[in-house]
Amino acid sequence: MKAIDLNSDLGESYGAWGMGDDTAMLAIVSSANVACGFHAGDPAGILKTVRAAAEKNVAIGAHVSYPDRVGFGRRDMDVTPDELIADVIYQIGAVKGIAAAAGTTVRYVKPHGALYNRIANDPKQGQAVIDGIKAVDASLVLMGLAGTPILDLARRAGLAVVAEAFADRAYTPDGQLVSRREAGAVLHDPQAIAQRMVQLARDGTLTAIDGSTIRIAAQSICVHGDSPGAVSIAREIRRAFEADGLRVASFLDNR
Amino acid sequence: MKAIDLNSDLGESYGAWGMGDDTAMLAIVSSANVACGFHAGDPAGILKTVRAAAEKNVAIGAHVSYPDRVGFGRRDMDVTPDELIADVIYQIGAVKGIAAAAGTTVRYVKPHGALYNRIANDPKQGQAVIDGIKAVDASLVLMGLAGTPILDLARRAGLAVVAEAFADRAYTPDGQLVSRREAGAVLHDPQAIAQRMVQLARDGTLTAIDGSTIRIAAQSICVHGDSPGAVSIAREIRRAFEADGLRVASFLDNR
Amino acid sequence: MKAIDLNSDLGESYGAWGMGDDTAMLAIVSSANVACGFHAGDPAGILKTVRAAAEKNVAIGAHVSYPDRVGFGRRDMDVTPDELIADVIYQIGAVKGIAAAAGTTVRYVKPHGALYNRIANDPKQGQAVIDGIKAVDASLVLMGLAGTPILDLARRAGLAVVAEAFADRAYTPDGQLVSRREAGAVLHDPQAIAQRMVQLARDGTLTAIDGSTIRIAAQSICVHGDSPGAVSIAREIRRAFEADGLRVASFLDNR
Amino acid sequence: MKAIDLNSDLGESYGAWGMGDDTAMLAIVSSANVACGFHAGDPAGILKTVRAAAEKNVAIGAHVSYPDRVGFGRRDMDVTPDELIADVIYQIGAVKGIAAAAGTTVRYVKPHGALYNRIANDPKQGQAVIDGIKAVDASLVLMGLAGTPILDLARRAGLAVVAEAFADRAYTPDGQLVSRREAGAVLHDPQAIAQRMVQLARDGTLTAIDGSTIRIAAQSICVHGDSPGAVSIAREIRRAFEADGLRVASFLDNR
Repeated sequence: MKAIDLNSDLGESYGAWGMGDDTAMLAIVSSANVACGFHAGDPAGILKTVRAAAEKNVAIGAHVSYPDRVGFGRRDMDVTPDELIADVIYQIGAVKGIAAAAGTTVRYVKPHGALYNRIANDPKQGQAVIDGIKAVDASLVLMGLAGTPILDLARRAGLAVVAEAFADRAYTPDGQLVSRREAGAVLHDPQAIAQRMVQLARDGTLTAIDGSTIRIAAQSICVHGDSPGAVSIAREIRRAFEADGLRVASFLDNR
Repeated sequence: MKAIDLNSDLGESYGAWGMGDDTAMLAIVSSANVACGFHAGDPAGILKTVRAAAEKNVAIGAHVSYPDRVGFGRRDMDVTPDELIADVIYQIGAVKGIAAAAGTTVRYVKPHGALYNRIANDPKQGQAVIDGIKAVDASLVLMGLAGTPILDLARRAGLAVVAEAFADRAYTPDGQLVSRREAGAVLHDPQAIAQRMVQLARDGTLTAIDGSTIRIAAQSICVHGDSPGAVSIAREIRRAFEADGLRVASFLDNR
Repeated sequence: MKAIDLNSDLGESYGAWGMGDDTAMLAIVSSANVACGFHAGDPAGILKTVRAAAEKNVAIGAHVSYPDRVGFGRRDMDVTPDELIADVIYQIGAVKGIAAAAGTTVRYVKPHGALYNRIANDPKQGQAVIDGIKAVDASLVLMGLAGTPILDLARRAGLAVVAEAFADRAYTPDGQLVSRREAGAVLHDPQAIAQRMVQLARDGTLTAIDGSTIRIAAQSICVHGDSPGAVSIAREIRRAFEADGLRVASFLDNR
Repeated sequence: MKAIDLNSDLGESYGAWGMGDDTAMLAIVSSANVACGFHAGDPAGILKTVRAAAEKNVAIGAHVSYPDRVGFGRRDMDVTPDELIADVIYQIGAVKGIAAAAGTTVRYVKPHGALYNRIANDPKQGQAVIDGIKAVDASLVLMGLAGTPILDLARRAGLAVVAEAFADRAYTPDGQLVSRREAGAVLHDPQAIAQRMVQLARDGTLTAIDGSTIRIAAQSICVHGDSPGAVSIAREIRRAFEADGLRVASFLDNR
């Protein structure tokens, strides 16, 4: 039975402020990208999310970020490699501590937001993230965007990697994400999205924005849970997978 | 050869702001209370201090605090037990991650500032600190003030504890610290302080502020490094110990 | 035509995190307690709220807080008077700057959360808040809990004050809020609450939790907007006031 | 008697962490760029510095920054114009409030660190800073780097501007700062620096790094105070000015 990983950003509440529906998403996904406190997440909230993920057997990833809470980690920052290495180590360590307290472990690392986009193509910051991960725990897997250089960089550095695709995003004919500034970049129809993802999981292909068929090598699919609409899309993907005989399971179990 | 532990607060710089002379102190002490980012310490600075401590074979403790950077963790805060447990886990985890990156491990936990004072006598917050430590790593030792109830509370909860005395503080006849608001609470003469500490290490006794001799059961002595004067006192204590045939060594090696 | 002020906490979103429904509440209240960035509110969000308040002719108050974002200003903190004075000045100044940018002015100051509760009865922190307000703009009015000593303290210091009552809270026979830890402390029925507030606005009386009638001297009523239920209560109060021929207007217009 | 302004970054301590020698510098400079809390400065410390500046009749500027305390505002950030406008308003407002409490006023705005460098040549962020200043107080003067486009942008927007030169930096033949990455970019000899600045104040010229003479139109000279060496340079410049019959005075008094 073929399997595919579904991942989502969780633990993004902060103090009195809620975000997303972690409970709903933990019934859908197999991997939880857990905020580490730099863009979102306070210790008590992270602990709650990690405990809930452990109960649901959802794999836990450290969703490391630039230190920019008010900007939710979405703003590019020119941090130095030494700063970035240490920031990555600190965040992974913090969530590892929380995972230990919840009787589970951190299995992978997914950079968040602006850092995610930056390292996809910036080998300097990318290498810093890789160095940080290796320094704290070389068995952690790096999750990155399918088709971007960071994956090769990490592999060459000896890290295991997992490539992901975005469920609700259109792709260019050469396998890149269509920029959010362009029309049609973000998809909204749950059924259409679910069918695209079934095709991706089955055949490793997607229909690009120009109608051509492209090949995307992804072991994980990123779904969102930050709005009721987003949860519905995620739920429909899971339903479609199961209807099609596809198993949703952590990429760690699929290797 | 009799041994005694010397501990000091380190890693308390923050970003562009320096504090203390970690290099000087790491040549004097056997235990480093390393800031975890809540009252002081940024990841790059903590990493630097932990690496230097590892090189010098100085034992590393997590110096956990209330989340109050602008107040340097010195202001009492009514955090809930759930918040405090998670804050403790997060901070220990973060420094454990940094210690792993530096090829070493965190061996003990010392609460900082207002939290240290609060838990000495507040079983509610004290229990939360204990619960946090046990949740993340039950082998960690809790460092607390000699003669205060927190030590028994921790022992009964199954944690190993180490009691400390303050080198530069006067004591009341019943073995408590003289309040800083009272005259004579803080001692300044390096030689006098060093001789007090030799007596404490040798005989387990101190001269109280009224001239009486009191018994203090301490396995560690806290020295400061936040001013040139403080470093001089610490250095004089170390010198006096060695002159007296006392070995300075982590409490972990003395058990 | 008799008038009464309705106030509510607004501008409490933070970065990507929303809180409350400022648009809905600005159609109901006459005074907006605007977060200043210490417990909630980021500059862009505060500016948006202040602009909307100005458009609706809602009076703007600075909702000053302890510096505790992760705790939402709800945790008591032992700040020193000098720290508190400066924190109050800084926050008022920041919102005054934003008000100037929105073509309006700050008219009053309402301490938030734990600081609000603390100064109600703590003259040391209370005096610091008063000193901070007077230092930055002695024409600002201090809003405080009806029946508490802070109001007299402020009056004696030369500040104008406005006393407020809480719409959804039960009162003891001696005019104090029933503690939230006790059953019946928080009221939920919109119609019942609205009728209580009409009585308060008309006669200056309330029915206490033991059924007795008490006198509450309040020029403003605090309503919440942090949940759909809370907005409904606020809307019902406004509706009942208008049905009863009471005008909702800033306390500044009622003097 | 010819006059020139000397400005320096002050109020950059934070909580328990000191930085610079504000007392020494306030005896030297005529304009104080006061940290606003985003890269440095806590309210109590800012208030202390502003009070000391007021006593010394030193003009007060708001030293606005990106929100990056751990990076001391030195890291470029892709903030949006709306965020930047509001951040600028908030910071200016906060320091205006503190200035009011100290019985003085904010006279100018100098962006700090990475924001300063960015807006020198980035009209998008530059315009946001200008819009923020104008929104809160259009009488404020913008201080910027002599010879950079931001000054014209601000002038065209109706803001008064003051151009500054850096005392301890080498210049290229076309009047730009030599990059810190190149040898000779930073000057260290107090006498040589002071003579350069006398020439600049007298004739409006400097010797560029290639030996050529260049024209720099600067009404203010930036001196540093973050180390004993920096204070010595600043003091020597002031001494040389007075020896040469040049008056040190705020650019506001020189117009």
